[in-house]
Amino acid sequence: MARQVKIIGVQVKDIRFPTSLQHDGSDAMHTNPDYSCAYVILNTDSEHKGYGLTFTCGNGTEIVVAGVNAMKNWVVGKQAYDIFNDFASFWRKLTSDSQLRWIGPEKGVMHLATAALINALWDLWGRLEGKPVWKLLSDMTPEQLVSTIDFRYITDVVTEKEAIEMLRKDQSKRAQREKELLANGYPAYTTQVGWLGYSDAKIKMLCQKYLDQGFTTFKVKVGQNLENDKQRCRMVRECIGWENTLMVDANQVWGVQEAIDWMIELKEFKPLWIEEPTSPDDILGHATIAKALEPHGIKVATGEMCANRIMFKQFLQHNALQYCQIDSARIGGINEILSVYLMARKLNVKVCPHAGGVGLCEMVQHLQFWDYICLNGDKTGKWIEYVDQQHEHFKVPTNVQNAAYIPPLAPGYNTEMFEATLKDNEYPMGKVWQELIKQGKHYDPR
Amino acid sequence: MARQVKIIGVQVKDIRFPTSLQHDGSDAMHTNPDYSCAYVILNTDSEHKGYGLTFTCGNGTEIVVAGVNAMKNWVVGKQAYDIFNDFASFWRKLTSDSQLRWIGPEKGVMHLATAALINALWDLWGRLEGKPVWKLLSDMTPEQLVSTIDFRYITDVVTEKEAIEMLRKDQSKRAQREKELLANGYPAYTTQVGWLGYSDAKIKMLCQKYLDQGFTTFKVKVGQNLENDKQRCRMVRECIGWENTLMVDANQVWGVQEAIDWMIELKEFKPLWIEEPTSPDDILGHATIAKALEPHGIKVATGEMCANRIMFKQFLQHNALQYCQIDSARIGGINEILSVYLMARKLNVKVCPHAGGVGLCEMVQHLQFWDYICLNGDKTGKWIEYVDQQHEHFKVPTNVQNAAYIPPLAPGYNTEMFEATLKDNEYPMGKVWQELIKQGKHYDPR
Repeated sequence: MARQVKIIGVQVKDIRFPTSLQHDGSDAMHTNPDYSCAYVILNTDSEHKGYGLTFTCGNGTEIVVAGVNAMKNWVVGKQAYDIFNDFASFWRKLTSDSQLRWIGPEKGVMHLATAALINALWDLWGRLEGKPVWKLLSDMTPEQLVSTIDFRYITDVVTEKEAIEMLRKDQSKRAQREKELLANGYPAYTTQVGWLGYSDAKIKMLCQKYLDQGFTTFKVKVGQNLENDKQRCRMVRECIGWENTLMVDANQVWGVQEAIDWMIELKEFKPLWIEEPTSPDDILGHATIAKALEPHGIKVATGEMCANRIMFKQFLQHNALQYCQIDSARIGGINEILSVYLMARKLNVKVCPHAGGVGLCEMVQHLQFWDYICLNGDKTGKWIEYVDQQHEHFKVPTNVQNAAYIPPLAPGYNTEMFEATLKDNEYPMGKVWQELIKQGKHYDPR
Repeated sequence: MARQVKIIGVQVKDIRFPTSLQHDGSDAMHTNPDYSCAYVILNTDSEHKGYGLTFTCGNGTEIVVAGVNAMKNWVVGKQAYDIFNDFASFWRKLTSDSQLRWIGPEKGVMHLATAALINALWDLWGRLEGKPVWKLLSDMTPEQLVSTIDFRYITDVVTEKEAIEMLRKDQSKRAQREKELLANGYPAYTTQVGWLGYSDAKIKMLCQKYLDQGFTTFKVKVGQNLENDKQRCRMVRECIGWENTLMVDANQVWGVQEAIDWMIELKEFKPLWIEEPTSPDDILGHATIAKALEPHGIKVATGEMCANRIMFKQFLQHNALQYCQIDSARIGGINEILSVYLMARKLNVKVCPHAGGVGLCEMVQHLQFWDYICLNGDKTGKWIEYVDQQHEHFKVPTNVQNAAYIPPLAPGYNTEMFEATLKDNEYPMGKVWQELIKQGKHYDPR
């Protein structure tokens, strides 16, 4: 177990895909994203490596790369198991660096960089143990699991002791749940029918395609134009019927009152939730929106841009969200996300992870599987987001069958990309980008 | 007035001072800061330039520099007055960049970089008008002033219309207040007696020094060790007496309950406020602390790491702070800080700016002067923080006389540094750093 594996180097790469050319991923705030990632490779003195990433949207990936480079001295030269055996302490040191914390703390670029590094460490740990990360997590005792989490600033909602108790409660059910999950997988919903910028024909075609694949839950982007939103929601409802589930997502485009007014206009389409109605920092604003929409049967979902556990804590405490959308690359990696699951469990809020982008589906499934096996044991009315893009670049891509994520069995966190992808898509020198730059098709946001 | 001045280039430099060698600026969370800044120079097709900066703590300055570089295409090639005449729109575009906003939004590295760029634009504007920024602001009509502010996400506290009304109310008093300010300045408090790591003798010497300079208000760092805190608070009280004012600052080191317990232990020293008792993101936590300490006569102050106007809005709405400590380089520059002043005024909360570091005193004085002249008109029980360090690098340093900031008359935002400073302190190639690196004295946080 505690074999000696030394981390001898950290590489970090700027990998981008020119998705803005097809409007894939376009929403009311992100009209032209080039799905990208800062990609970390941990080299060790053994044959094992660790791969980790954080998702980005094109420009700015180089800044996150600079963030990882500034932190890598915390990792290089360390014995991997010295980190894993006291992971909470390591995590706190990394996020409390006396000079770096000023430019965070625990948010934005620096926390994305933290996530990339931490995700790579968990991938390495899974590989060293010969287990997928969901299984690594699920095989931990409550005490081991909790030893990875920094409880600073959240003990007013959950303490280490309470966390251990929550995990102990269902320990005997783990084996049965694992078996069930391996047989049936975890429900997925699709966001792919409703990006802004898709034509009507494309939306209809996609609705049918995902219905045929067994999907029952569909998300549509809204918020740029009310009439257009109505027309697209109507079209999607006509395709998917009323027995299936529809959610809508505004990607932060509204103020508080505007969100309420707009959603009342859309209530005829019976959306389950409105996602990101306003600023991701506005806890009290979300609470106001949730309260106003509650009589109309519309819930509030948010989390993909929630900065850290302290923000999640308040959203959860304040009934500001009813669906907690953790993101596997936004807050500081698995250690911190586990603390959000524990708080959500304590306060009885459903976790429906954000995914898509680059590698987010690959990673977040592990965490939701662990939640099901060890903490929650209930999939009712819960889904993991699914977007069928950029999976082909991963050596072990997500496996979604009949609208369910099937647990991967390969060791690690499913974060390793093909060498050819890394070579061709590295920005700006990879051949994908050199060709676009030559053709003048390189996106300029101005 | 609307002369054509084109911005033809943006330079950004990584400037650092080795302050960690003397423990200047040491607190419970930042034990070894090297006070630094990302320094922006806007070049124009005229003889005028704009200088702007954001404060950093050493490592990581290069990341903020990368942030500025990623945004500079929004500025280069623009006519300066096209920006100034529709400043709110420009500010929103800069902070809503479709690809960059994912790695913020409006927080951390990207918002620090925004501040550096925006501060440089205001410096340029002041220079073009031949006015210090406080005077540029104070000479604006309410409508002009408000046209610089993006009200997105804050209209539930203050609307454009309400802001104009608030500013109109005191318009007739501006001339008199300006005269008064030029004569007497604005009160300052000193943080310099109480950094962690200073010896007893040094603390006593500094108390006497600042008493002799006319200071009546003193701040001490706390939070590393309760007995040591008591001993230092007692020593400072012995030096400054009980008729003067003492504040304490924990720099985020505690959880919520811990903050309450610790401060009750320190209440015998009658601190006016506890600053940053816990995570800068914990609005509800600060509110809990403020409520618990209210019967003990201790107020809560925070803001230097508050990410943006949306976070400030909630702190203000929720009675989570009684002293609002805006920072001139943390949130997205003057435009956004003005919105915080307006919200604080509306909700009757005192603004006592954070300063120190590099250039923070130089900049923030302008904003507090404007607040006094145009919005607030009252200095009672308010101060601007003052730290007597790094001023010698600025061409027009702050002028503090008899514990009061005296308004500068030079055009601009007081942000221009001497060429020699830029040359010697540029990291890592400036001679200051080359020598330290050669001697092996370069700080390593691990």
